[in-house]
Amino acid sequence: MPSELRKDPLSQRWVIIAAERARRPGDFEVEPEPVPPGFDPFAAGNEAKTPPEIAAYREPGTAPNTPGWRVRVVPNKFPALQVEGTLNKRGDGIYDRMQGIGAHEVIIDAPQCVRSFTALSDVAVQEMVWMYRDRLVDLRRDKRLKYGMVFKNVGVAAGATLYHSHSQLIVTPILPRAVQQKLESCVQFYEYRGRCLVCDMLSQEAETKTRVVLDSGLFLSFEPYAPRTPFETWVVPKNHESHFEDIQTQACEELAFILKRTVARIEKGLGAVPYNFMLTSSPFDSGPLAHFHWHIEIVPRMTRLAGFEWGTGFYVNPVPPEEAAEFLRTVTL
Amino acid sequence: MPSELRKDPLSQRWVIIAAERARRPGDFEVEPEPVPPGFDPFAAGNEAKTPPEIAAYREPGTAPNTPGWRVRVVPNKFPALQVEGTLNKRGDGIYDRMQGIGAHEVIIDAPQCVRSFTALSDVAVQEMVWMYRDRLVDLRRDKRLKYGMVFKNVGVAAGATLYHSHSQLIVTPILPRAVQQKLESCVQFYEYRGRCLVCDMLSQEAETKTRVVLDSGLFLSFEPYAPRTPFETWVVPKNHESHFEDIQTQACEELAFILKRTVARIEKGLGAVPYNFMLTSSPFDSGPLAHFHWHIEIVPRMTRLAGFEWGTGFYVNPVPPEEAAEFLRTVTL
Repeated sequence: MPSELRKDPLSQRWVIIAAERARRPGDFEVEPEPVPPGFDPFAAGNEAKTPPEIAAYREPGTAPNTPGWRVRVVPNKFPALQVEGTLNKRGDGIYDRMQGIGAHEVIIDAPQCVRSFTALSDVAVQEMVWMYRDRLVDLRRDKRLKYGMVFKNVGVAAGATLYHSHSQLIVTPILPRAVQQKLESCVQFYEYRGRCLVCDMLSQEAETKTRVVLDSGLFLSFEPYAPRTPFETWVVPKNHESHFEDIQTQACEELAFILKRTVARIEKGLGAVPYNFMLTSSPFDSGPLAHFHWHIEIVPRMTRLAGFEWGTGFYVNPVPPEEAAEFLRTVTL
Repeated sequence: MPSELRKDPLSQRWVIIAAERARRPGDFEVEPEPVPPGFDPFAAGNEAKTPPEIAAYREPGTAPNTPGWRVRVVPNKFPALQVEGTLNKRGDGIYDRMQGIGAHEVIIDAPQCVRSFTALSDVAVQEMVWMYRDRLVDLRRDKRLKYGMVFKNVGVAAGATLYHSHSQLIVTPILPRAVQQKLESCVQFYEYRGRCLVCDMLSQEAETKTRVVLDSGLFLSFEPYAPRTPFETWVVPKNHESHFEDIQTQACEELAFILKRTVARIEKGLGAVPYNFMLTSSPFDSGPLAHFHWHIEIVPRMTRLAGFEWGTGFYVNPVPPEEAAEFLRTVTL
């Protein structure tokens, strides 16, 4: 089968779907995983080993930074951005710079030392997701901050340095380029069609069904048309909603349900692969948007980015998304 | 030291320079390197183990696909794109697709089985670089093709699957987004200032000197203002030139000289790190451009891309480029 070029309408990046290359030796080498640590700084009882907590869901009567919590948020010990200070935007000859103002938080998903959140109870996953909401709602009050990205790095190849299941939140003082590009695509589409691009994608995916992994009623999980990596999967609310933070309580319950089962299928089907997940919502300073639609991207990391991807922004993916979806649909949990 | 946000004017991406994070354990873990293979399909004498050669520099009187070559070009055995066929651009509901027409070639740098081209003689490196030129000149005659990216993947973490030093060339039927973005930045700058952006960068770098690694007269190697990874280094011709393929013979000799010594300093200073290098030139269908300037980016791969980078297009780099350049300047070869 000759390869095919496909364009992701949201990011506007092109992907080469090259099924021939799947047979190339070494393409799916999965790296050795970190072992559960001898010492776990994120475990209950070790609260003193992290910076003081910013937020937690905990049993009534228990004190901050002591056991009794179910989800706990602490500053990243090695923050990429910090809340203190002023932006101090300035030039440097022809270059532009500013201070690294923002936030970099770690959301400890649960007191138990599990590698992936899929090992947690449905209720625990709901609380993890709800904490994402709470933190975004809190941080968007700071007028210096423009955008919050919630993400997970699971496994060494995905950038994890700690085994204990956790999420991260980085809030930036400018709108990141990748998000800006998505917003621009959606604005263009909306101006031309008068509809939301992601809503149209969802209609097509629900109709063709070839790329759908799970349908939970309020949410669809599916392989995108032009996935960057084998088994890249998106989880998207079917009803139009621009800001994740505005999620309804009932939808949060269902999001936790489908997110856990989607990732669990990837892990059951492919082994304990390293993966990233990224939650893309709307900019902090906008009200509800008719053209943008929040979504979660799950990116298994079994292939390596090489010079071509770095230089061009193109991705080469040896697994067609239709085959990936068909495989994931057959996985039984 | 608090972190700093810096913008790369060419790609328009922002980078967080977070020196604090350099102390984070595991940040600079270098992966185990592949060992020289028991069987080497790229060695002289094994020509039958690759697809038939497309081009070679070889001793007079030696036949194609036999020993006697110094640089040899073959099709990639698992090509991402292929020359045969028609583009057949078409829609797929709201999506866009086309056939994977293009070229994917492997340039075997030399018959000797070395890991990195820096172990080759200066003359051999010149021939490697000159072969890049020959292949681009040949391929741009095909009107279906829009852009050629020459790159190297050295080391497992950089995407290499073979040890024997080689380069690759992928030619695409559309202009890649990353290149398009650079072109747009340069057009904007040219419209506003009437000068080439990269020429202005070179002036500033040569004047401030803090990020310069080597100055060979015709070329400058320096750490970019907003590098994606620790020790990212660019090699750029000082005289304005939009198309690498138009390089003068004398400049080619000097490019080989500075490229080899720049990468050798990285390898001597940091160990046999995995790295990518990407040569960005102008689109095939344009004549000489006043606003664009070809350049080579060398990207050591000691840090891992995680969810934040994937989701935002932002990079977090724990090593300020001024410190990286100072370090590389002190390395003696």
